Amino acid sequence: MQLTAEQITIFLVALTIMLLAAKFFSEIFVKLNQPAVIGEILAGIILGPTVLGMISPDIFEWLFSQNEVALSIDSLITLSVIFLLLVSGLEVDLSVIFKNGKSVTSISSLGIVFPFIIGFGVSYFFPSLMGKEQTGDHFAFSLFMGTALSISALPVIAKTLIDLNLLKTKLGLIIISSAMINDFLGWLLFSLILGLIGAGLHGINFIYTFIFTLLFVIFMLFIGRRIINILLQKVNNKLSFPGSSLSFILILGLVGASFTELIGIHAVFGAFIVGVAFGDSVHLKDETKEVLHQFITNIFAPLFFVSIGLKVNFISNFDFVLVLIVLVLAFIGKVVGCSLGAYLSGFKKNDSYAIGFGMNSRGAMEIILALLGLQFGLIKESVFIALVIMALVTSLVSAPFMNYFIKAKNKLNFINLLNKNRILFSEKNNKTGVLGELVELASKELLISKEEILKVINERENSFPTGIANHLAIPHAKINIEQPFIAVAINKNGIDFGAEDGLPAKAIILLLTPENNNELQLQLLSEIAHSFSSISNSLEIVNSNSQEEIINKIKLLSNAKASLTSASSRQL
Amino acid sequence: MQLTAEQITIFLVALTIMLLAAKFFSEIFVKLNQPAVIGEILAGIILGPTVLGMISPDIFEWLFSQNEVALSIDSLITLSVIFLLLVSGLEVDLSVIFKNGKSVTSISSLGIVFPFIIGFGVSYFFPSLMGKEQTGDHFAFSLFMGTALSISALPVIAKTLIDLNLLKTKLGLIIISSAMINDFLGWLLFSLILGLIGAGLHGINFIYTFIFTLLFVIFMLFIGRRIINILLQKVNNKLSFPGSSLSFILILGLVGASFTELIGIHAVFGAFIVGVAFGDSVHLKDETKEVLHQFITNIFAPLFFVSIGLKVNFISNFDFVLVLIVLVLAFIGKVVGCSLGAYLSGFKKNDSYAIGFGMNSRGAMEIILALLGLQFGLIKESVFIALVIMALVTSLVSAPFMNYFIKAKNKLNFINLLNKNRILFSEKNNKTGVLGELVELASKELLISKEEILKVINERENSFPTGIANHLAIPHAKINIEQPFIAVAINKNGIDFGAEDGLPAKAIILLLTPENNNELQLQLLSEIAHSFSSISNSLEIVNSNSQEEIINKIKLLSNAKASLTSASSRQL
Repeated sequence: MQLTAEQITIFLVALTIMLLAAKFFSEIFVKLNQPAVIGEILAGIILGPTVLGMISPDIFEWLFSQNEVALSIDSLITLSVIFLLLVSGLEVDLSVIFKNGKSVTSISSLGIVFPFIIGFGVSYFFPSLMGKEQTGDHFAFSLFMGTALSISALPVIAKTLIDLNLLKTKLGLIIISSAMINDFLGWLLFSLILGLIGAGLHGINFIYTFIFTLLFVIFMLFIGRRIINILLQKVNNKLSFPGSSLSFILILGLVGASFTELIGIHAVFGAFIVGVAFGDSVHLKDETKEVLHQFITNIFAPLFFVSIGLKVNFISNFDFVLVLIVLVLAFIGKVVGCSLGAYLSGFKKNDSYAIGFGMNSRGAMEIILALLGLQFGLIKESVFIALVIMALVTSLVSAPFMNYFIKAKNKLNFINLLNKNRILFSEKNNKTGVLGELVELASKELLISKEEILKVINERENSFPTGIANHLAIPHAKINIEQPFIAVAINKNGIDFGAEDGLPAKAIILLLTPENNNELQLQLLSEIAHSFSSISNSLEIVNSNSQEEIINKIKLLSNAKASLTSASSRQL
Repeated sequence: MQLTAEQITIFLVALTIMLLAAKFFSEIFVKLNQPAVIGEILAGIILGPTVLGMISPDIFEWLFSQNEVALSIDSLITLSVIFLLLVSGLEVDLSVIFKNGKSVTSISSLGIVFPFIIGFGVSYFFPSLMGKEQTGDHFAFSLFMGTALSISALPVIAKTLIDLNLLKTKLGLIIISSAMINDFLGWLLFSLILGLIGAGLHGINFIYTFIFTLLFVIFMLFIGRRIINILLQKVNNKLSFPGSSLSFILILGLVGASFTELIGIHAVFGAFIVGVAFGDSVHLKDETKEVLHQFITNIFAPLFFVSIGLKVNFISNFDFVLVLIVLVLAFIGKVVGCSLGAYLSGFKKNDSYAIGFGMNSRGAMEIILALLGLQFGLIKESVFIALVIMALVTSLVSAPFMNYFIKAKNKLNFINLLNKNRILFSEKNNKTGVLGELVELASKELLISKEEILKVINERENSFPTGIANHLAIPHAKINIEQPFIAVAINKNGIDFGAEDGLPAKAIILLLTPENNNELQLQLLSEIAHSFSSISNSLEIVNSNSQEEIINKIKLLSNAKASLTSASSRQL
């Protein structure tokens, strides 16, 4: 069985349109500082029965409804979700979890149990309120809704913490670790529900499914993880790099997916667990991770998120009351549960609320779960849509609420003081030239004369050169201003600022601070130096091509491991 | 239409087995210093009707012959070939071709015309000799066989030149440029043959196909190329990087593929031309290329090459006489044609032969062409197998023959003198310590006492420090030996060797040369310094984890742009 030339054409045209629409809308949302996935889902709604199917049913049918083509697209999407869960698993760092044991246990257990009980309870006792149809397994439906409310989305939580500059803080680590456990238990629960309703292969008893799942998880996390660590080192050293490590991860991911599908739970769970086992290996190199992340999150993930809109008519199945109920229950369950867990483990009130709202993001994980629930007949279209909307809303409001409780954005630090209008690309070839450019910028914005600024800067410069190391120089001075001022000049040729390592300065960062605040100056100097603490970080920043790119790179490099962040920066 | 849980399991298991077998055999062949693709094809033959289908027809049927699963795999393979041709197109650098106009025109035109006439002539006048069946279009068959003999494989040729350390030489550039044109015209010809036999969509007249193809090529190479260059810069700067540039390339690749499929020629041609248009852009960044190359050549390409063996029984359809005839004609046509072209454009006799054998590699391109020929009924199984074998044999013998004619391997240069037994990872923290280790190695191999070597080395070291720059130091001396000796110590902490840039030496390369040969010493010193000419190159070498990795990185970095080589290093 093979596609005909005409079917190949349709298959290619459909994929092209899906990717193009996904990219178009996701970039708009990224520009608006919103998660890319919202744009991708919107693209799907426009291409699907909701819009295109209404305007031109013929084109919609031609593109997405012909048997062989639809099957080909669907198989590709299946593969996409499996790969997406595999890279999500890579983000889970078990060692971080173990380190913060007590708080994490408290937050994640209450953060699961509480919303689960609410979701399960309301669904069980008031099924019609939750959009339950008359037919179908009542118990399984209630279990599913409980799980759906208790899941968290690791990637979007990581992204929010990076945006708020919190990832490296204790609060950030606690939230990330709790989210990992939540994610993990949520998927385990869901997989077992699928086993229970017999959605997998026929003829497999639920008891066996349950035992096999448990054995698989225990094996992968305790023994498989160690074996993978050893094998990965061998693969990296003995075989072609990075090609072989890429294949190794994808092959084992597929093995895990096949195995879980075989024992009656969903393939994505196996891929996820294999990802977790790999994510923990010290031999997983950034280069390998980067290729996987970039290709999967930029090609496979958009295809998947677009496909969501293709399945359902979002207007005719929209049920306002249901959406509202799901939203309210989701907020109450998660925020109360996690805040309580945090409070009981010793956090202050405001920090506890911040943790609660941080954990409230449901993101892509919820959407994948909802789609599988729909496919296996656990929920109907209107519930599916309510869950998708809930996933998006909880993710969108997470950052503003956290910010309200910890007021992170008001903190005076290097990153918050960066501003793209205060970054310039300099062509000058000497110190005087580039300092002139920076001072002119400062003069305009601070309404202080150029001469005055130059004077204090040069005084400092003459007493001791401000070249630091790794192509960085920080000409700085205290001056009569209220707020600190930072301007950046990037000079790709490099200018000698007398750094001890002999390297010419390619990033020249002008730092002006209020006169009476010695501590603030020291803090900012050290933060700036920290961002350029290795030559590779430094070169990455200096080789940027736009103001936005520079700010993003500095944010990423000073927040966390480059791999985690670059992967999360576009995901929900 | 959707896969059932059982079909998903089979789909995943089949993909797992295909990838696993491909990787297993390809790594064996890579270890034997042979192209990976041979292992991948062998894996397919073992999984296909030739071996598995004979031993256990049930398992073979279960895995690869169920309608929906087979269709899903086949669609994925179609996508794989399209992506593979897209990245092959990226390697084509039009500006290089224009620079070497005269020789390239002469070599590539004779290198196409000569084998084409031989292939077409023999097929037309002695069709049964070439395995033509009684039925089928006689003229189209002859055209196809002419094309099949005249095609060249850019990736494998680039790989051979890198192995022989010739890529940067004039000879190398001429061969690469000619191969690009050959590749290009071969695919154009083949696409037109498909148009001629009406293999594309129904109802499209060949004249229209021809005109549209011509317009498409002219548009893409003259106007589209410039538009792409401008758009790519905007995409890089304004949108998320590298995600958006990745999507941009793949989307346009799919557009090109859809378009050519629509006008009645094959999708791969459109993807290839779009690749060529992108490959020429100065805004195509290495990072983007790297992600595309790594994912596509390590995941999609193996899937495709394995699938070849799944289609045909390689034993029952093997026709020894036919294989021999195709082989002989292929060698005569290409080697004579290209050598003559080179000779006429002014090359010496031996160099002309070297060019002829260099261009003789057919590699992956031939295999893709042969498979399409089989699918469209232009050739039968036995001819397909003969072409696959011809592709492999011509690629395998290319390097030894070139080597024979130019004796490149005998040249005394840095890369040829590298030997993995002469590379050590040093933990010492001072100059004396690491020099001691290197000298001990030299002493054992050269049978000269440690003291004698240390004496001449220290003399040189004391007169002027041998730290160069970028973490490189080259302690060196002339001594009573016949052949130069090079040993490398990698010290990740770095040791001060008095380099002017102040950076500590992390690569310490001991160079001993014969006493009477001043020129050789200077040549080797400059070659070594050249390999470490930038800090990023240097760090890449120093951060390797094995002896093999160090040698490979030095080879790659001193041969060509990292992107071209890393992509080609595993391809045929």
